[in-house]
Amino acid sequence: MRNEQQEQLGISRRQWMLGAGTLATTAALTHLGGWLPSAKATGGATEKWPWPYEKLDPTTTAEIAYKEWYRIFCGGAVISSVFVQLREKVGEPYSSFPIDAFVFLEGGIANWGTICGSVAGANMVANLIIGPRITGVEAGHQIGTDIMQWYCEAALPVFKPKEPKVREPIIQTISESPLCHVSVGKWMTVADKPISSPERKDRCARVTASAAFHLVELLNTWKDGKYEEVGDWRPNGEYGMNAQPNCMECHGGGVPQAPMVKK
Amino acid sequence: MRNEQQEQLGISRRQWMLGAGTLATTAALTHLGGWLPSAKATGGATEKWPWPYEKLDPTTTAEIAYKEWYRIFCGGAVISSVFVQLREKVGEPYSSFPIDAFVFLEGGIANWGTICGSVAGANMVANLIIGPRITGVEAGHQIGTDIMQWYCEAALPVFKPKEPKVREPIIQTISESPLCHVSVGKWMTVADKPISSPERKDRCARVTASAAFHLVELLNTWKDGKYEEVGDWRPNGEYGMNAQPNCMECHGGGVPQAPMVKK
Repeated sequence: MRNEQQEQLGISRRQWMLGAGTLATTAALTHLGGWLPSAKATGGATEKWPWPYEKLDPTTTAEIAYKEWYRIFCGGAVISSVFVQLREKVGEPYSSFPIDAFVFLEGGIANWGTICGSVAGANMVANLIIGPRITGVEAGHQIGTDIMQWYCEAALPVFKPKEPKVREPIIQTISESPLCHVSVGKWMTVADKPISSPERKDRCARVTASAAFHLVELLNTWKDGKYEEVGDWRPNGEYGMNAQPNCMECHGGGVPQAPMVKK
Repeated sequence: MRNEQQEQLGISRRQWMLGAGTLATTAALTHLGGWLPSAKATGGATEKWPWPYEKLDPTTTAEIAYKEWYRIFCGGAVISSVFVQLREKVGEPYSSFPIDAFVFLEGGIANWGTICGSVAGANMVANLIIGPRITGVEAGHQIGTDIMQWYCEAALPVFKPKEPKVREPIIQTISESPLCHVSVGKWMTVADKPISSPERKDRCARVTASAAFHLVELLNTWKDGKYEEVGDWRPNGEYGMNAQPNCMECHGGGVPQAPMVKK
């Protein structure tokens, strides 16, 4: 059964496995004294949550995100669209946050087509403002998940900027996945436009603006104490592993069964 | 041809497209005055690169990452393993960086199985220290790419901690992908262990340690002025879109041709 599954995936067991050797030597263990973080090394001043948040206008935020895409691309633009406003309205800790470092989220992390930068950026912003789930507050984590599900299901781009660089209508597609490769690839196929085209760039700038718009909608609801989780994707419970909902898109020949806890 | 490609993917054109409507109303445009960032809103104090860096011991870093995985998981642990040491050796801007917010990178972003958090965390650290490519310095971007390629090709986990929580040998697998779902899924299949098993957790803690080890190796080389790019994956030039190298794994029935620039 295990071998059948691997054959369905077109990958042999041999390819997955490697005896110890080749790369293991790079990690030869040397003596390491017991490591304990000092007080100075733990609990940075910005690691107290929630960060002060003031409600923002979704349309203004989306317009900033659209413009910023042409400077720092999808992930950076979502972060910038929220944080530059909060730098003005609130100040720290937003002023000390290095927004521009997140250009690398472009193209699904340095053009590898993994998670769409706008989704990664939105998750970052929600978790930076509300805090990580290990603090006992789950809203940041949940807003991130909601945006992933929204991104999978929405006809993107949703948002149309006031003064778009591309005047012609931009076709909308549904990605069914948070991955850049899948989202951009489906759009490129339907629109029949190459990755370097002005239309593809403006599509991604508008997707970024759409994500920023929705992010601020959710953050404002949270600020009002009215946030309720929408996303219902619980892959570990249902499928026994971290996963997206679009199983059949890659596993057309049959979805492998994850090893489960022995009863 | 276009339709054939879509059939190969098992997805109809209809699924990808949606007329304007459903969600577009949420983005109804209201009047927006021209937005221009003020001096205060741009160029945070931490957006000057490179950040001060002192060479770290890869093994010490990997041991910290391994321990931190059990507190803040893959992405947070890679960031923490480098930044807690630099908080002690250097101070700012590391002291002001909110490491713990990045718990959400776990399980490929909030358990959606997209990019492995250890890879996302390593990209973050490289770009935070060296700076984004828009500054004209590409080494941070390139080190991130190198780590993605290394992650695809390495028999993971490479690193064995001095005092592992799981004493039995952890089998090594090659992911051929930077995605959590693919990397963890292949390991789970070969090891025949569920996601909740101590062995799977220790495998991911060791993968995290392995990524931190390799990240610091590359950062130390860069600090010495001897860094040379290793990764040679240029998806946009070769394939016309953002992508991973393992095309056939999802596109077993035939890899669609991306729309290209008309000659």
